[in-house]
Amino acid sequence: MLEDILHKVAQGHVTADEAKEKLATFENLGFAKVDHHRTKRQGFPEVIYGEGKEPSQLIDISRAINAKQENVFVTRVDAEKAADIQNQMPAFTYDQTSRTLFLANGKERHQAWRGYVAIVCAGTSDLHVAEEAAKTAEAFGAEVRRFYDVGVAGIHRLFEHIHEIRQATVSVVIAGMEGALPSVVGGLVSHPVIAVPTSVGYGANFQGLSALLTMLNSCASGISVVNIDNGFGGAYNAIMIHQIANRSLSEVNTD
Amino acid sequence: MLEDILHKVAQGHVTADEAKEKLATFENLGFAKVDHHRTKRQGFPEVIYGEGKEPSQLIDISRAINAKQENVFVTRVDAEKAADIQNQMPAFTYDQTSRTLFLANGKERHQAWRGYVAIVCAGTSDLHVAEEAAKTAEAFGAEVRRFYDVGVAGIHRLFEHIHEIRQATVSVVIAGMEGALPSVVGGLVSHPVIAVPTSVGYGANFQGLSALLTMLNSCASGISVVNIDNGFGGAYNAIMIHQIANRSLSEVNTD
Amino acid sequence: MLEDILHKVAQGHVTADEAKEKLATFENLGFAKVDHHRTKRQGFPEVIYGEGKEPSQLIDISRAINAKQENVFVTRVDAEKAADIQNQMPAFTYDQTSRTLFLANGKERHQAWRGYVAIVCAGTSDLHVAEEAAKTAEAFGAEVRRFYDVGVAGIHRLFEHIHEIRQATVSVVIAGMEGALPSVVGGLVSHPVIAVPTSVGYGANFQGLSALLTMLNSCASGISVVNIDNGFGGAYNAIMIHQIANRSLSEVNTD
Amino acid sequence: MLEDILHKVAQGHVTADEAKEKLATFENLGFAKVDHHRTKRQGFPEVIYGEGKEPSQLIDISRAINAKQENVFVTRVDAEKAADIQNQMPAFTYDQTSRTLFLANGKERHQAWRGYVAIVCAGTSDLHVAEEAAKTAEAFGAEVRRFYDVGVAGIHRLFEHIHEIRQATVSVVIAGMEGALPSVVGGLVSHPVIAVPTSVGYGANFQGLSALLTMLNSCASGISVVNIDNGFGGAYNAIMIHQIANRSLSEVNTD
Amino acid sequence: MLEDILHKVAQGHVTADEAKEKLATFENLGFAKVDHHRTKRQGFPEVIYGEGKEPSQLIDISRAINAKQENVFVTRVDAEKAADIQNQMPAFTYDQTSRTLFLANGKERHQAWRGYVAIVCAGTSDLHVAEEAAKTAEAFGAEVRRFYDVGVAGIHRLFEHIHEIRQATVSVVIAGMEGALPSVVGGLVSHPVIAVPTSVGYGANFQGLSALLTMLNSCASGISVVNIDNGFGGAYNAIMIHQIANRSLSEVNTD
Amino acid sequence: MLEDILHKVAQGHVTADEAKEKLATFENLGFAKVDHHRTKRQGFPEVIYGEGKEPSQLIDISRAINAKQENVFVTRVDAEKAADIQNQMPAFTYDQTSRTLFLANGKERHQAWRGYVAIVCAGTSDLHVAEEAAKTAEAFGAEVRRFYDVGVAGIHRLFEHIHEIRQATVSVVIAGMEGALPSVVGGLVSHPVIAVPTSVGYGANFQGLSALLTMLNSCASGISVVNIDNGFGGAYNAIMIHQIANRSLSEVNTD
Amino acid sequence: MLEDILHKVAQGHVTADEAKEKLATFENLGFAKVDHHRTKRQGFPEVIYGEGKEPSQLIDISRAINAKQENVFVTRVDAEKAADIQNQMPAFTYDQTSRTLFLANGKERHQAWRGYVAIVCAGTSDLHVAEEAAKTAEAFGAEVRRFYDVGVAGIHRLFEHIHEIRQATVSVVIAGMEGALPSVVGGLVSHPVIAVPTSVGYGANFQGLSALLTMLNSCASGISVVNIDNGFGGAYNAIMIHQIANRSLSEVNTD
Amino acid sequence: MLEDILHKVAQGHVTADEAKEKLATFENLGFAKVDHHRTKRQGFPEVIYGEGKEPSQLIDISRAINAKQENVFVTRVDAEKAADIQNQMPAFTYDQTSRTLFLANGKERHQAWRGYVAIVCAGTSDLHVAEEAAKTAEAFGAEVRRFYDVGVAGIHRLFEHIHEIRQATVSVVIAGMEGALPSVVGGLVSHPVIAVPTSVGYGANFQGLSALLTMLNSCASGISVVNIDNGFGGAYNAIMIHQIANRSLSEVNTD
Repeated sequence: MLEDILHKVAQGHVTADEAKEKLATFENLGFAKVDHHRTKRQGFPEVIYGEGKEPSQLIDISRAINAKQENVFVTRVDAEKAADIQNQMPAFTYDQTSRTLFLANGKERHQAWRGYVAIVCAGTSDLHVAEEAAKTAEAFGAEVRRFYDVGVAGIHRLFEHIHEIRQATVSVVIAGMEGALPSVVGGLVSHPVIAVPTSVGYGANFQGLSALLTMLNSCASGISVVNIDNGFGGAYNAIMIHQIANRSLSEVNTD
Repeated sequence: MLEDILHKVAQGHVTADEAKEKLATFENLGFAKVDHHRTKRQGFPEVIYGEGKEPSQLIDISRAINAKQENVFVTRVDAEKAADIQNQMPAFTYDQTSRTLFLANGKERHQAWRGYVAIVCAGTSDLHVAEEAAKTAEAFGAEVRRFYDVGVAGIHRLFEHIHEIRQATVSVVIAGMEGALPSVVGGLVSHPVIAVPTSVGYGANFQGLSALLTMLNSCASGISVVNIDNGFGGAYNAIMIHQIANRSLSEVNTD
Repeated sequence: MLEDILHKVAQGHVTADEAKEKLATFENLGFAKVDHHRTKRQGFPEVIYGEGKEPSQLIDISRAINAKQENVFVTRVDAEKAADIQNQMPAFTYDQTSRTLFLANGKERHQAWRGYVAIVCAGTSDLHVAEEAAKTAEAFGAEVRRFYDVGVAGIHRLFEHIHEIRQATVSVVIAGMEGALPSVVGGLVSHPVIAVPTSVGYGANFQGLSALLTMLNSCASGISVVNIDNGFGGAYNAIMIHQIANRSLSEVNTD
Repeated sequence: MLEDILHKVAQGHVTADEAKEKLATFENLGFAKVDHHRTKRQGFPEVIYGEGKEPSQLIDISRAINAKQENVFVTRVDAEKAADIQNQMPAFTYDQTSRTLFLANGKERHQAWRGYVAIVCAGTSDLHVAEEAAKTAEAFGAEVRRFYDVGVAGIHRLFEHIHEIRQATVSVVIAGMEGALPSVVGGLVSHPVIAVPTSVGYGANFQGLSALLTMLNSCASGISVVNIDNGFGGAYNAIMIHQIANRSLSEVNTD
Repeated sequence: MLEDILHKVAQGHVTADEAKEKLATFENLGFAKVDHHRTKRQGFPEVIYGEGKEPSQLIDISRAINAKQENVFVTRVDAEKAADIQNQMPAFTYDQTSRTLFLANGKERHQAWRGYVAIVCAGTSDLHVAEEAAKTAEAFGAEVRRFYDVGVAGIHRLFEHIHEIRQATVSVVIAGMEGALPSVVGGLVSHPVIAVPTSVGYGANFQGLSALLTMLNSCASGISVVNIDNGFGGAYNAIMIHQIANRSLSEVNTD
Repeated sequence: MLEDILHKVAQGHVTADEAKEKLATFENLGFAKVDHHRTKRQGFPEVIYGEGKEPSQLIDISRAINAKQENVFVTRVDAEKAADIQNQMPAFTYDQTSRTLFLANGKERHQAWRGYVAIVCAGTSDLHVAEEAAKTAEAFGAEVRRFYDVGVAGIHRLFEHIHEIRQATVSVVIAGMEGALPSVVGGLVSHPVIAVPTSVGYGANFQGLSALLTMLNSCASGISVVNIDNGFGGAYNAIMIHQIANRSLSEVNTD
Repeated sequence: MLEDILHKVAQGHVTADEAKEKLATFENLGFAKVDHHRTKRQGFPEVIYGEGKEPSQLIDISRAINAKQENVFVTRVDAEKAADIQNQMPAFTYDQTSRTLFLANGKERHQAWRGYVAIVCAGTSDLHVAEEAAKTAEAFGAEVRRFYDVGVAGIHRLFEHIHEIRQATVSVVIAGMEGALPSVVGGLVSHPVIAVPTSVGYGANFQGLSALLTMLNSCASGISVVNIDNGFGGAYNAIMIHQIANRSLSEVNTD
Repeated sequence: MLEDILHKVAQGHVTADEAKEKLATFENLGFAKVDHHRTKRQGFPEVIYGEGKEPSQLIDISRAINAKQENVFVTRVDAEKAADIQNQMPAFTYDQTSRTLFLANGKERHQAWRGYVAIVCAGTSDLHVAEEAAKTAEAFGAEVRRFYDVGVAGIHRLFEHIHEIRQATVSVVIAGMEGALPSVVGGLVSHPVIAVPTSVGYGANFQGLSALLTMLNSCASGISVVNIDNGFGGAYNAIMIHQIANRSLSEVNTD
C-alpha cells in the first residue's frame, strides 16, 4: 500500500499533501479503521468498560456510537449508574446479574453464527461473572448455552451435560474457590477452553489468586486463562475463535 | 449410544457381559479414544512431558507409541537425557534450543494446513521457550513463522513484521522481563493471541511473576495466558484454533 | 491419678520422694509414655525425620529404638545417606522412590487391620510423595491400595477405580500442578480425604503453593490438608482415622 | 450393581428404558443419592452455605429440604438476613455468634452418638469461628464440649482441661494470631486434630495467612488443616471421624 | 563554612554563643535552609502531603507558609476536606481530579522555564494520578504537555504524539493495568522517563503490583520508577531534571 | 516447692486435698499468679486488648479488675466505644490519639522508676501508634520522652534530639513508609531499640509490609521488631527492659 | 521530514523507490539511528547484556560493533566467560568486581564531561552492584566518585563525605538489607537520586524485595528506583541526567 | 561539649584548627568512638559478618583488630573458609555447628557477668542458628545455658526445664517450622524473649516466612523478633539486656 501511494505521488495522481494524509491515516488510524470495518460488517458492538467512568461520560460515548448506528455494550455498570444512564437513554436494556447495558442499533447485522458457545460455571456465586461472559457473547451475536452449578465437588452434575458441552465451538469455563472446573472440562472436550477465575471464596483463596493459579497450572492441554473476574475477556476470546470457525465456512461458501 | 447398547441387550443381540464391557469402555476409555481417533486421523503426535521422567521411562512410552506407528514428541528433555534416549532410539531428532525430541512415524498424515501460526518473541533470552512453542506447532503439522527479538523497548522492530504477523491464523507471543509484548501485538492484530510469560529476567521479575501479571492485566482484548515458560501450552492452544479454521474448510470441502 | 498418688502419700503407702518421681513422670514423660505404650501395643514404629540429620545421628537413634525391639521407620533419606546407614545396619530396607528406610523388629505386632487406606495420586511425577505416604501407612501396619496417575485432566482414569476407592476407610489424595484431584475425589467418596499438595510443576505453581491453595479452597466437604510434599503427614492422619475404625471394633470384640 | 441391571435386562425383568433410567441415576444422581440415604438414616441436616445467597433463595432451598422432612442448617448468615428468613420461616432458630440458622424437622433421628467432639479455641476473638464449628457438629447430632480461651500464651489454661480434651474422639482446634494452639494440642492428644486458622489479628497476620502457615508447618503429627475461618469445614471433617468410631461400634452391635 | 566561623570566633568577630547558634543552624536546620533558599529563589512552593492530616492542621501549616509569602501546594485532599479549608482560606484553588490545593503567593518568581515536561498517561482511569503529576509540575512552574489515553493496546494513539513527546525535557509516564506504556515510550525517546504505576485495574493487578513490577523489569533503558499512584513523586523527579537543564543554561547565561 | 508440699503431706501437715489444691494452683494458676504478684507489687495495670470486644464485655472485665483495686488499661478502643464505657464507668480517662482508656485505681504503687523510655517516631501520620506506645509505657509507670516527626528524610531533625535519646534506658522507634528510622537510631545509641513498623503509607508499602521488612533486615545491631502497628507490644518490651535496669538497682539498694 | 520526502518525490528529485527506502528507514531504523548518532557523537559505547548469551554470541556482536570503531561494553559476564572472550578478543579489559568487559575503540570521543556522578553504596557486600554502576558510568565517559561502605547503621561515615556527594550532578545510591540509604541521602542532597536495591542479605530480605520496597516508599522526594541489582540501569539513568546538564552547557557554548 | 570547645576557642585556649578537628571528631567519629570505648572497657569482641567476604579480607580485618589487642569474633564462616583463615591465623578457634571463628586476645576483660542467658531451641535442625546465638553470647562474655529440642509438639520436654529458663536474665528462643515456641515460652517467663525464626522446614514454611509471621503475631507479650536465621542478632539483643542488669548492679557497687 505504501508503494502504491508513492507511485501515485511520483506519477502526479496524488499530491504530496494528499499522500501525507493517507500515510498519516495508515500510521495513526489504520488499526482502528480495521476494527471499525470489522465492526460494521459483522454488527459487532462497541464495548465500553464502565468501571470508574461517570454516567455522563458513558452517555457521551454511547451517543457517539449510537449516532453511527452501531450497537453499544457497556460492562461493569452497577444498578444505580445504569438507572442514571437509562434516564437519559431509555433504549438501553440493563441486566442486573451481569451488570451490563445493551443498546441494539446496528444497521448491518452479521449473518447468523453457526454453532454455539458453552458458558460453564462452577457455582451459583460465580453467576455475575458467568453472565458477564454470556451477555458479552450474545451482544456479539453468538448463541450461548449456559451450564451452571456444575462444580467438581459433585462431578455427576457436569456429566449430565458433558455431551452438549462437547458440541460447542469453544467453552468459557468460570470457577472461583479452588477453580478446578476448567481442568476437568479441558480433559473432556476437544475444543479450546477459556478459563475465567473468579474472586468468589474466602480465606486462602486470596481474592481469586487460588483459582487463578489452579487454572494456570492445569494439567489439561488446551486451556488458556484471563484475569480474575474477567467474564468479558473470557467471552471475547471465545468469540474470536467462534468467529474463525464461522468465517472460514462463510468464506468458503461465498467462493 | 447407551440406548443402543441396552436395546441390543434387551433383544439378545448383545450379552450382559458384552454390554458391561462396552459400557465400561464408554465410561473409562471413551474420552481417550476420541483423542486417539483424532490423533490418527490428523497425524497428531502423542506428546510426552519429559521433565522428571527417567530415560528408560521415556523410551518405554515412546516405543509403545511408535509401535502404533504414530509420531512421538517429547518436551523438556535436556541434552544428556536426549543422548541416552537417542542411543536406544536413533530415529529421534533432538533440538537443543527447544529441548524437544521428535520421531516422525505417523502413517496417516493430516492434509496440509492452510495458513500459519506466528511465534512472536520479545528477546533472545526467551528463545528456548519460543522454540518449544515453534517445534510443538511444527510437530503438530502447522507452518510456523518466527518473529524473534521484537520486544517493545524497540518497537520499530515489531513494526517491520507486523503485516506478516497480522496474516497469521493465530499468534503465540512470548515475553519475559516486563512481558509487555502481547499487549502491543494484541492491539495490532485481529486474531487470537496466546500469551506465554517466561521466567527470563532477574530481581523484581520474581521468576516470571512480573510477565505473568502483565499479560493477565492486558488492556488489549483477545489475549489469553498460559503458565510461565509453557511454550508447549501456548502452541497447543494455538494449534486448536488453527485446526478450527482448517477443519471448517476441509469439512466444507469434503461435503 | 494425681489424687490417687496424694492419698497414697497421705496414707504412707508412698513416700514423698516416690510421689515426686511419679508426679514428675506425669508431668514430664507422661505424654511420651502414652505414645510409647501405644507404640508397643500396636507395633507402631518410631518414625524419624531424616532430613538434615547426619548418618551417624540416624544410626544412633535407630540403634536405641532397635534395642527396645521396636520397628524403625526413617523418612527423607537420600540414596547416599541410606547406603551409609545400611553399611552399619544392614537390617534396614531402603526404598528409593519414597526415600524411606524401614527396620522391622517389633516384638508385639498389632492385630491385623481391617479395611485399607487408599493412596490416590494425580501424576507420575508425584510418585515419591505418594510412596512416602504409602510406605508410611504400610510401616504402621495398614493395608494400602495405590491408585496412581488418575489426575483430573483425564477423569475417566479415576472412574475406573472409584468403586474401590470408595470402599477404603480413608483416602490420602496427592496432587501437584493445579491440585484439583482431592476436590473431585472428595465429591465421590463418603469417608475423610487427607489432601497432600506436592511441589511438582513449574512457573506459577510456585513450589506447590498453587496445589496447596486449591486444596484449602476445595468446595467439597470432608477434605483437610497437610503441608506441601508431606506424604508422611498425610498417611499419619489417615492411620489415626484407620485406627479409630479398627479400635472401636476390637474394643467391642474384646469386651 | 451395573452387572445386576444388565442381567435383569437380558432376562427381560427390566426393559431397556427402565435400565437406562437406572443407569442414568447411577451415573448422574448416584453420589447424591448415597448422601441422601446417609442423611435420612442419620438425621444429618442438609447444609447450605448462606454467603452471597439472597434471603429468597435461601428460603426456597430451605422449604424444599423442609418438605422432605429433613433438618436444615444454614451457615454464614448475618443477623439482618436471618431476620428476613425467620419472618417467612419462623421455625428457624438463629444463633448470632456462629451466624447459623437451624431448623429441626428430621423424621428419623440417628441413634445417639457415643463420645464427644472437642472444640478448642485460642481466644475470645475467634469465638464466631469456634461457634460455627460447634453449632455444625451439634446440628449433625454430636455432643460438643467447648474449651475456649486456652491460647498458648497462658498454657496453664489449656492444661486445666487437657484431660477432658484427650478423652474426645476428635478435636477441632481454632486459632488466629500466631495459630500455635493446634501444635500444642496435637502433641498432647492421641486422636486426630482438625486445625482451623482464623483471620483474627492484624498487621503481619495478613488476614489469617500467619495462622494458616503455622498450622501447615506444625511439627506435631496428626494435624490436618482447613481454610481460614472455615469453622464448618473443621467440624465436618471431625464429624466424619466421629461417625467412623460410632459406625463401627453400631455395625458390630447390630451384627 | 565551619572553618570560617571558627576563625571568626578566634578573631573575636563572633562570640562563642553566636558561633554555637550558627553551628547549630548548620547542623540542625542547614539542609532545610538550603531547600528554603532554593524555594525562595525559584518560587518553588512548599508541598504538603494532605492524607491523614486534619483540615485544621493543614490550615495551620498553610498559613505559616503563606505568612512567608510563598506558594502553598497540598496533595491528596478530598473534596470535603478541601471545602473546609477553602472556607477558612478562600485564596486556595482546588482541583478535583488531581485532588490538590494551590495558593499562589510567592513574591519572587522563578524565571520562565525553557522546555516542557510530558505527562503521558495510558488510560482515562489513571487520570487522577496523571493530574496529580501535572498539577505538581505546574505548581513548580513548569510547562506541562498532557498526552492522555495513549495506552499500548492501541499504540497508534501514542504514535500520533510521539514527536511532541520526544521534544520534552523529561517524561512522566503513568499506567495501571499491565503498565507497559513506559517501556514503549522509553524505547522511543532519548530523555529520562519517570514511570508511575497506578492501582487502576482489578483481579491479578493486585492494587498496582502488576504495573509496578512491569515498570521495574522494563527492557528499555532510562526508566526509573516511583511508588504506586505517586503522581507527585513522579513529577517531583521530573522537575529536578527539568531544573538541571534550565539551571545550566541560566548559569551560563548569567556568566 | 513441689518437694515441700509432698513432705508436708507425708508429715500430715497438709491433707491430700489441700496438697491437690496447692499443686493445681502451681500447675494451673502459677504463671498467672507470678504476673499477679508482679502487678500488685509494682502497680502494673492489667491490660485489655479492646479490639473486637463489646463495650459490655470490656465493662465486665474492667469492673472485675477495678474490684481488686488495680489499674485498668484498655487499648484499641475507638471513640464511640469509649463513650459507651465512660457512660458506665466515668472514672476512665480516654485518649483519642492513642485510642486507650486508663483507670488509675492501684493501691500499691511501684516506686518511682529511674530513667526514661524514648518514644521516637518518624512522621505525624504514625502518631496514633506512637501514642499507643507512649500511653502504655506511662500506664506502666515509666517516664516517657517523645521525639516525634524525626524521620530519616530530614535527618537533622533527629540529630537535634539524639543526645537526649541516647540517655534513655531503651527506645521504641516507630516508622511507617520505608521504616528506616530504627536503623539510623540503632546506629546512634547503645541501648536496645524496639522497632515498631506502622501501616502508614500507600501503594508498595502493602499495609506495613515494607516497614516491617526494613526493620527485620536492619544492618544495625541491637534492634528487635514487633508486629505492624503494635505500639503496645513495642512499649511492653521496652518496659520489661526498663524494669530490669530499675529492679537491679532497687534489689541492690534493699540488700 | 515526511513532508520533505514527499515533496521531493512530487518534484521528481527522489524516486518512489528511494522514498520508500527513506520512509522505511524512518519507520524501522529511525529510533535506532538516533541512538546511533548520539553514540557516535558522544563516544557512547554500545552496551551488551551478557547474561544468558554464549561467548560466541558475545564475540560476534562485539566484533560487529568494533568494526564500526565504537566502544563496546558488556555487563553480567562471569570470569570464565570473560576469559573465553578475551582469548579471542584480547583488547577487552575485564573487571571482576563489576563483571564487565570494556573495549575502547571509539574514534570520536565526547568532549570531557563537567561535574561527576556520585556512586554511594551502603555495604561492602553490595560492591559488585556498585561497581557495575561505576564502570557503566565510566564507560559512558563520566567522572565517577565512589562513596562506599557508608550505610545508615553508622551514619557518621556518610556525613564525612556528604559535602562531596552534594556537589555531584546526580547520585546513584545502592543498598541491600534494609535499603535505607537512599532515603537518608535523598534528604541531604538537592539533585536527583537513582536508588538501586540489591539482593544482598538473607531471610526476610527475600532476595532484595525488602530493599526495593523501602526505596519505593521513601519519604524523601527526588528518589526514583530501578530493578534489584540493576547497577547498569541505575548508572544509565544517572548518565542521562548528567548529559542533560552538560548538553545544555555545550549547546550554549557552541551557539 | 560544643559549648566547651567554642568557649575555649574564644578564650584562645584552643586554636580554630584544633577546634575544627575536635568538632570533626565529634561529628564523624563520635559514635564509633563510643562503641570503641565500650568495647575496650568490657572486653566485647569486634564482630565481623563473614558472609560474602573473602578469606583475605577477613584476615586483614582480623589482624587490624588483633593488633589493638581485642577479641575477634567472625560469624557465617563455612568450614573451608575457616580453614583458609586458620592457616594464616592459627590462634582462631573454629566452631563448625555455629560456623563462627573466635580469637581471644582482649587485654581488659569485663568483670564476670551475673546471671545467664537462656538459649531455647525447638528442634535439632535449628542447631546451627541456636549455636550461632550461643557462641555469640559467650564471645561477649555471658554465661549461656542451652535448652535444646524442646519444641511445642512435645511440650513436656520444655516443662522439664522451665524453672531454669525462668531464672535467666533473658531468653533467646529459636524455632523453625511453625515457630510456636516463643509464644509458649513468652507465656511462662517474666523476662524479655528475643525470638529468632529459622528457615528450617519445607513446603509452606517458605524459607522461614511461616516461623517469622508466627513470632510477629504472638499473643504473648514481651516478645520481639529478629530476622530469619539471625542467631547473632538474637544474642546481641539479649546481651544488651543482660548488660543492663549487670551494669546497673556494677554501677551501684562502684558508687
